[in-house]
Amino acid sequence: MFYFVIDILGTIAFAISGVLVAMNKKLDLFGVFIIAFVTSVGGGTLRDVLIGNTPVTWMQESIYMLIIALTVVFAIIFSNHLHHLRRTLFLFDTIGIGLFTLLGIEKGLTADLSPIMCVALGTITACFGGVIRDILCNEIPIIFRRKEIYATACILGGSSYFLLILLPFDGAYAYVAAIMIIIVVRLMAVKFNITLPNIYGRQKA
Amino acid sequence: MFYFVIDILGTIAFAISGVLVAMNKKLDLFGVFIIAFVTSVGGGTLRDVLIGNTPVTWMQESIYMLIIALTVVFAIIFSNHLHHLRRTLFLFDTIGIGLFTLLGIEKGLTADLSPIMCVALGTITACFGGVIRDILCNEIPIIFRRKEIYATACILGGSSYFLLILLPFDGAYAYVAAIMIIIVVRLMAVKFNITLPNIYGRQKA
Amino acid sequence: MFYFVIDILGTIAFAISGVLVAMNKKLDLFGVFIIAFVTSVGGGTLRDVLIGNTPVTWMQESIYMLIIALTVVFAIIFSNHLHHLRRTLFLFDTIGIGLFTLLGIEKGLTADLSPIMCVALGTITACFGGVIRDILCNEIPIIFRRKEIYATACILGGSSYFLLILLPFDGAYAYVAAIMIIIVVRLMAVKFNITLPNIYGRQKA
Repeated sequence: MFYFVIDILGTIAFAISGVLVAMNKKLDLFGVFIIAFVTSVGGGTLRDVLIGNTPVTWMQESIYMLIIALTVVFAIIFSNHLHHLRRTLFLFDTIGIGLFTLLGIEKGLTADLSPIMCVALGTITACFGGVIRDILCNEIPIIFRRKEIYATACILGGSSYFLLILLPFDGAYAYVAAIMIIIVVRLMAVKFNITLPNIYGRQKA
Repeated sequence: MFYFVIDILGTIAFAISGVLVAMNKKLDLFGVFIIAFVTSVGGGTLRDVLIGNTPVTWMQESIYMLIIALTVVFAIIFSNHLHHLRRTLFLFDTIGIGLFTLLGIEKGLTADLSPIMCVALGTITACFGGVIRDILCNEIPIIFRRKEIYATACILGGSSYFLLILLPFDGAYAYVAAIMIIIVVRLMAVKFNITLPNIYGRQKA
Repeated sequence: MFYFVIDILGTIAFAISGVLVAMNKKLDLFGVFIIAFVTSVGGGTLRDVLIGNTPVTWMQESIYMLIIALTVVFAIIFSNHLHHLRRTLFLFDTIGIGLFTLLGIEKGLTADLSPIMCVALGTITACFGGVIRDILCNEIPIIFRRKEIYATACILGGSSYFLLILLPFDGAYAYVAAIMIIIVVRLMAVKFNITLPNIYGRQKA
């Protein structure tokens, strides 16, 4: 139940991020809905396709489409006021990538993948909805450009999970701890302006 | 046999639309063929991948590749005269999305999906070849931008199918009726210039 | 063992091509890694998804991710000197597409596809990593634009394989011969500046 609430909050935060990008591009109602939808479920869909978990999750659980549709309607009506929610949305997004990473790792374990591939799958689940959103909006994906600690937080937290269960740590605790690590790493990176290393020498990237 | 003819006409119309976009971008022969190909079969391929119906349909039925290759050759040779066919192509395209939507719905029923997801799958089948075409040509997909009643026609017609079989209506009649509804909605929308509602307030989108 | 070495050399060449494109776009470290990764394994991944060979190959063989990660580190450190390796990389890339085409054909045969579809699958394996790279970097894929004999070499070599085993020719010999044909066609085309036919009449495309 607790996880379900987080899942829904993350889905809403992702959908609103999609609405904002799509409206910025002046897309029509259908375009805004599709961008919100792929931002929310695109990462999990890519994950499901790569491991052969089909029909993909959102086709089997109509709740996601319903929530995203409601979010889109709400976000369009209140689009002039969404900037007031910026901090709340950032928080939901951060909690969302934490949970989505671990959901992806779980699916990887079910598919008998190695820990490294489970972490990759978790990161795809959390981050590649935004990648597909940006591709559909004809932009280079933002997480490839800004040196932000975003996917990196998912990779660190996901790796922690496997370290923790090695210690040995109880699985359920490790699960929660890994989500917390992703959230804390992301929040700390934003607060203290920590970025990925610059790979372009002295000139400004 | 009747459906097969419509399927082929739709495939040809979609392929020609791909050739036109690709030649507009000055792509080379290989690029033009690939764009024509994904425009025609991309929607069905995405559908097959999402529900795990693999190898995807076009790999199992070589007829599509053959027809698309012939269409590309024809379209390149007569590219200066294709505008004379604009009305014919529009008609084939419209009939094509009607049939492709219902083909997608059928696949969804076979995969035990809910009616809403079947309609989504039908719409993907009919509309997402064009989305992949536009992405490969580095454009924001046209169906996300123009407020046209295109995907909306597929959604309305697809939903009608499930209403009609509830009435109860014989499946085969409902199938044909739903295709007709998609065609009529699309034609009416173009004729009377009906569009999706503007979501950007007073300023022109 | 011999094939394995070629496979690794091709993977490295593809990854470096990804690094070069990504650095040219000033992507960050994560972006460079992802672009290198999809350039290397994207073609095989698309192939696996289309035929339902999941989890996709790179998830089951961690060696690829390791090699790509090392290549990315090496390529970033020596990025100012990579142009010295241009000829070597071109050669590795050419050998790579030869091998990858035949690997794709093998997978197609395992999936019971027709010879034409096997050739298509081989060409996708060899060429579509670069397509995904270009899409993620917001460019029209280079192999659709430049009239180069690249995918065409894969198609010719792949088709030769099926002609050779019809003759009849021993499978293993036909396999090596087809790889050689792809390499020779590609090298000859570059050396003698042979291109795809211009489809745009007199004006320069």
